[in-house]
Formats: sequence, C-alpha cells, structure tokens
Amino acid sequence: MLDQALARDIIAAVDAGFDEQVRETAALTAIPSLRGQEASAQDFMAAQYRRRGLSVDHWKIEVADIQHLPGFSPVAISYDNAYNVVGTHRPREKKGRSLILNGHIDVVPTGPADLWTRPPFDVYEKEGWLYGRGGGDMKAGLYANLAAFDALARLGLQPAAEVYQQSVVEEECTGNGALACLQRGYRGEAAIIPEPMGDCVLSGQLGVMWFQVKVRGKPVHVAYAGTGSNAIEAAWPVIQALHELEESWNAARHEMWQEHRHPINFVVSKIAGGDWTSSVPAWCTFDMRISFFPGMELERVRREVEETVRKASAKHSFLANNPPEVVYHGFQAEPYVVKDADAALACLEGAHRLAFNAELSRVATTATTDARFFGLYADTPALVYGPLAEDIHGFDERVNLDSLRKITQGIALFMADWCGVEKRH
Amino acid sequence: MLDQALARDIIAAVDAGFDEQVRETAALTAIPSLRGQEASAQDFMAAQYRRRGLSVDHWKIEVADIQHLPGFSPVAISYDNAYNVVGTHRPREKKGRSLILNGHIDVVPTGPADLWTRPPFDVYEKEGWLYGRGGGDMKAGLYANLAAFDALARLGLQPAAEVYQQSVVEEECTGNGALACLQRGYRGEAAIIPEPMGDCVLSGQLGVMWFQVKVRGKPVHVAYAGTGSNAIEAAWPVIQALHELEESWNAARHEMWQEHRHPINFVVSKIAGGDWTSSVPAWCTFDMRISFFPGMELERVRREVEETVRKASAKHSFLANNPPEVVYHGFQAEPYVVKDADAALACLEGAHRLAFNAELSRVATTATTDARFFGLYADTPALVYGPLAEDIHGFDERVNLDSLRKITQGIALFMADWCGVEKRH
Repeated sequence: MLDQALARDIIAAVDAGFDEQVRETAALTAIPSLRGQEASAQDFMAAQYRRRGLSVDHWKIEVADIQHLPGFSPVAISYDNAYNVVGTHRPREKKGRSLILNGHIDVVPTGPADLWTRPPFDVYEKEGWLYGRGGGDMKAGLYANLAAFDALARLGLQPAAEVYQQSVVEEECTGNGALACLQRGYRGEAAIIPEPMGDCVLSGQLGVMWFQVKVRGKPVHVAYAGTGSNAIEAAWPVIQALHELEESWNAARHEMWQEHRHPINFVVSKIAGGDWTSSVPAWCTFDMRISFFPGMELERVRREVEETVRKASAKHSFLANNPPEVVYHGFQAEPYVVKDADAALACLEGAHRLAFNAELSRVATTATTDARFFGLYADTPALVYGPLAEDIHGFDERVNLDSLRKITQGIALFMADWCGVEKRH
Repeated sequence: MLDQALARDIIAAVDAGFDEQVRETAALTAIPSLRGQEASAQDFMAAQYRRRGLSVDHWKIEVADIQHLPGFSPVAISYDNAYNVVGTHRPREKKGRSLILNGHIDVVPTGPADLWTRPPFDVYEKEGWLYGRGGGDMKAGLYANLAAFDALARLGLQPAAEVYQQSVVEEECTGNGALACLQRGYRGEAAIIPEPMGDCVLSGQLGVMWFQVKVRGKPVHVAYAGTGSNAIEAAWPVIQALHELEESWNAARHEMWQEHRHPINFVVSKIAGGDWTSSVPAWCTFDMRISFFPGMELERVRREVEETVRKASAKHSFLANNPPEVVYHGFQAEPYVVKDADAALACLEGAHRLAFNAELSRVATTATTDARFFGLYADTPALVYGPLAEDIHGFDERVNLDSLRKITQGIALFMADWCGVEKRH
C-alpha cells in the first residue's frame, strides 16, 4: 500500500508534466505509423527512451525467429520496416517487482480523408479531446507509460525494479510485435497495456481471426451474362452463410459476455473483384474478421468456417465444382481470460482509486489485445487499462485528455507500488 | 452483280493468301493491346498499311476534339497512348462506291492468367481454331479487312473507289476511337466491321451504359460492428434493386429481341471496398454494365437507374441520409437498329452466298459495337459481319479459321462488287 503523501506527490507530478505529455503525444500521433510504415515513429520512441537514460533495444523483427512460437500469426507483408523498441530501466537495487509497460505504435488506415473534419494526421486539441488517427489507439497510452515514469523522476525517484518500456508493431493485424518481445526474452512480473479501455481494466477478450475467401467465376462477355458465373454475385451467399454461423455463436453466449448485445461480429471488411466493366467477373476476394468465445480452439474455428463456406458453395451451380479457397493471414488470436492476476489487480485497484476517486470496473472486450501473449504464453498477469477514446478505427478518432491524465496517474501510482521506488542517482 | 469468273478468282486468291493471313493475325494477336496499351499494335497496323501503299493517317485522339459530339462517352483514363490509324486507298479513277473497313485494336483484360490453358498472349493454333486474347474480338476481323484488299492485289486489281482501312482504339469501353474517325472527316458510302458475328450480319444492337456506384459507410472498430454501417454489405440491396429494374426491362421485350432468353443484362463487374480487415468498411464502389432496348433515351436510362438507387437507399438506415453517388464513365452508347442499308445488305448477301454457299442471317445482338457511330451520326450503312469466335471476354478466347477464311472472301467479294475494281498501276 502506497504512502499517502507519496501518492499525492505522484498525482501532482503527473499534473505538472501533463502539458508536455500532451505536446509529445500529439507529436507522436502526427507521425503516420500505418502498418509497414512504423519505422520513423519507432525512431521517435527510441529517442524518447534514450533521453531518459533507459537502455534501448531497437531491432528488426525476423519472421524466422518467431514463426514456430505459439501465438504466431501468418504474415502477409514484408517485415523490412518492422522494428520493435524496448527501453529498459534497471534499478540500483531491486526491491520490488518488475513491470512491463507495453503499447503498440501501429495505427489503422484512415479511410477516405474527406470524411474527416481535419486531415487524419493533422493532430489538434478541441474541448478536452485530442484528435488524430492513432491517438486513442493507442499512442496516448504508449506515451502515458513514459509520462508515468517521468512523474517519479520529477520527484527525484525511480522504480526499484526493472521496468521495460515496450513500443511494438503489428498489434493491429497479428500481434507478432509483442510475440517478438517474448521471443527476445523480455519477462516481467506484471504487464500494463494502456489500450483505450475507457478507464476500466480488461477481464477477458475474444479470439479474433482474419481470413480471406477467394471466389472464382466463369467470365464471358456481359452481353451473354447468363452463360457465365459472376464471382462477385457468387460471393454473397457465402457471406450470408458465414453470418448465420456468427448468429449461432452469438446464441451460445459465453457468461463473461452476457451483457453485450452482440459480442461476436463477423465483418466483411475488404472486397475486390473483376477487371473489366464489360466482362462477367472471374474472381472476387473478400476479407473477413471474425471473433469467438473462450473455449473455442483455433482449429475448430477454422473447421467451422470452412465447412460453412463449403456448404454454401454446394448450393451454387458453378461454386459446387469450383469451391472458394479460404486463406488465413493476419490474426489467428486465441481468446484470453485474465487469471492468476489477483496481486496485480489489487494493486491497480488501489492506484485507480487514488487517481479517479472511484472503483475500477472490469470489463470483457469484444476485441483482442496483445495481453494474450503475456497471459497465455508467458504466465504474466497482463492488465489492459487505459483512457477513454472515441471512434478508434473510425473518423475523427479522439482521446479524452482528462481521462488520459488520470490514467497516467493510475499507471504511475501502480508502478510506484508494484516496483517500489528508490532515489535517482 | 459480280462477274462469276472474277468471284471465283477472288475466292481462290483469299485461299492462296490464307496461310500468310493467319500468320499475321497471330502476330497481331500476340501484341497485348489492352486499353491504354494499344500504341505498339497500332504501329504494327500502320506498317501494314504503309507496306501496301495506303496513305497512312496515324494520330493521337484528343478528348477536346470529340467531347462535344453526339455519341461521346466520358473518359476515365489518359489518352496519352490512344492512337488511331487509318490507311486510305484512292483509286486512279473512281467508278464505284467508297467503303470503310473498320475494326478495333483494343482487347479486354485477360483475368487470372492461371485459368487459361496457355498464357493469353501466347497465340497458338489448334484443331482449326486460333487461340489468344483479342484474336476473336477482333484482330482476326481487323486483319481480314487487309487480307480482302490483298486478295484483289494478288489478281492485279484494286478497288475502284476509296477504301478506308480503320484501326481504332477504345471500342471496348467508349467507342471514342470510332467517333474520332468521324470527327476527322472520314466518311464512306458503307462500312463493314468484322466483329465476331458467327458468320451473320447485325440487324440491331442494344444500348449499353457503364456506371459506378459509390457507397459510403460509417467505420468503427469491428469489435463494435453493430454501431457502424458496413459499406460493402450496404451495396448489396442496391445491386438487388438494380436487378429488379433489369427484370422489368426484360419483361417489356423489344420485338427484335423476342427470341433471346434474357437480352437485357445488368452485370456487377467490378467491386472494391474497405481498407483494413479490422475496420468496418467506410466505402464500397461497384461498377455495373447495363443494356437497354431501342426506344430508350440515355437520359431516361440514367433517371431510372438513379431512382432505383435512391429508393433502395431510402430503406437503409445509414444510406437514407448518405445516398450513394452514381458516376458515369465509359459507355454511354445509344441502341442502334440498322436501317437505310438495303443496297449494302443486298450486296453483302450476294457476297456471302458466294463465299459460304449459304444465305446470310441477320441477328440482333445483346452487345454494342462501333456500328452505331456510322449509322446514327454519319448516315452510313454499317454492316457488322464477321467470323465465329468463342469465349471472347473469357478464357481461351479463339476464332474459327475456316469461318475467318470465308468471311475474308465475303468481305473481298463485297469490296469488289461495291467499289468496283480497276487494274493496279
């Protein structure tokens, strides 16, 4: 239990640094670190870590190093620019428990820029919110990890245990960035990931899988369309059949998601097909993101998906003999329910109470996070705990600054309690 | 009426040149003159015209020259490589009627190359058919125009009237290549276009229109898919509503298409949407090719299409307030029924009878051809008359060589009769 005076000092120290924190968060958000283009944002993070005297490990992820590990997801793009950065603080004398402060640097695409009020990477503050793609998900959280460390430094203190500041790539599509941290040997006695949780802590997350369905057609001149087979039109009943599978999974609701209206979502999120407006299209490929409850193995998920595609195709004159191909790349993410985390959760509840003057709620999310790597493959309690954000993955994404300030205080208080503190050199 | 002995000589002269004709047709087909990439195939045609002593006009189409003309279709791509070639024969003494021999050099995309038995531009002959993208549609016909001219030359003869050999671009998407020939002043007393008509002559063609429908969505993180609006899924009821319009037009069948099972075809031929597999897609754009009967004005067609899109959107919670945009580029092609062509048709019937020893059938097509420019905008009887081809716009496109030989004879006989003949210098 944290000393009351120290807690007050930490809260004040976060407040004192908050203007700078917002400025730096805005600068980080302005770097368009879309998947495959994270390298310069990682240079920014490495410089931030170095400035604080952390020892910096800045390495390129090699698929060969991780592809045999549990939790690996197949990769569709080159990793030529896929760099992780970890900044490590080592205490003079270890007295407390070590801590991983993890966040991801990659942001999702903006969609049509004209649907944003201002350009997606033209970051601005308005009425207590900071706007910009990736600010909520999750650069505000990523930088809060550093700002919490800074708050202790402002008091002449530092954690009395190892603290690993991790900035990882690939969270939005595979999680291979977090996996690469495990492969490199990083371990802690707890991990915090400040994803935009709306001031709550994660109790569990769904499994998430991406796949692509490649539908073929028989092209003819459109003037004789009836003699061909339209691959775009043929994709539709396949999508509808997958939605029926979605509803059957929603009907068999897991107890942790009882209060969600519609926890399982199968989303056809990308589509492409056809080459020429006057030819019946010979191909249509759609991408789907699906989710599933704890208790379902990845193998079973894939089997049910493929069976559904096969059955829908059997009813179609052309697809019956030319069944679509199902290809998996991107997320093959197992569900994760937080467990064996009582000590860390109790510590976070205390910190949260001091920062927010309110109790910490636990919520199950319908998304996935990198927490699964720590929890499932490294026996590390992973606390996903972060600020309020809106329209992540949408237009005018924004993070609430008052929430960010208090979350930063919560992380700083947790760090001081979990790791203990010692005087800086 | 052609002299019997001359007719026999012409038929024999086409036979004598046919091996060379097939070789040159194969060489022309091997040039992948996809839309925007026709320039080197046009160089081939210009060289062919020049070798025969025709005066060659080889010019780049300028949109500014034609965009005000009836029949113009809006252009989606650059015309930097859009060259027409016309080779003109002028007689020493004009005795007969002038003739345009028109064909298009552009070919449609191949679709996935692995679905072809051999690569699409690896042209080969097998069991009496010549295989390759664009061989049927319509390089065999384009070169037959030249081979017919060669047959007279082999007899020491040439047409006794102007003959314009036209090789045009853009037939497969706008017809602006044929329009540019009209704009440049080319006129004839008849035109032949050897499209793959299966040894028949065209009696009428449908109107054809291309348009693109741009559907918007409301992107959110897929974990909360229910709160967004999926642009890909929203496109579907719009497509279905357009199919209902298609069926209503088929039900009100034009008399010339009574024997067609399903003359009007609305084909969704291209689709694209979404940027990221874990975001509800913010956009989906589909391209449709539709057709319509003679008697329907372009304006009415556009009005019915837009009304259909509007009504379908009104039933959708998001689209009702964010209606899709309908954009027109590519074909805005009026229907065309051949008329005032009795003399030319009678002449072709005679030629066909000599070549095929069979009567010439007139057929209405469910496609469009460049014939509409000659017929509708230049008062020129346009005879679409060409060989048997299969799987045009599909895989393993092929043209029948025996049919091609006889069609070439038909064109040569028509030319001799229509233009008259004189001795070559």
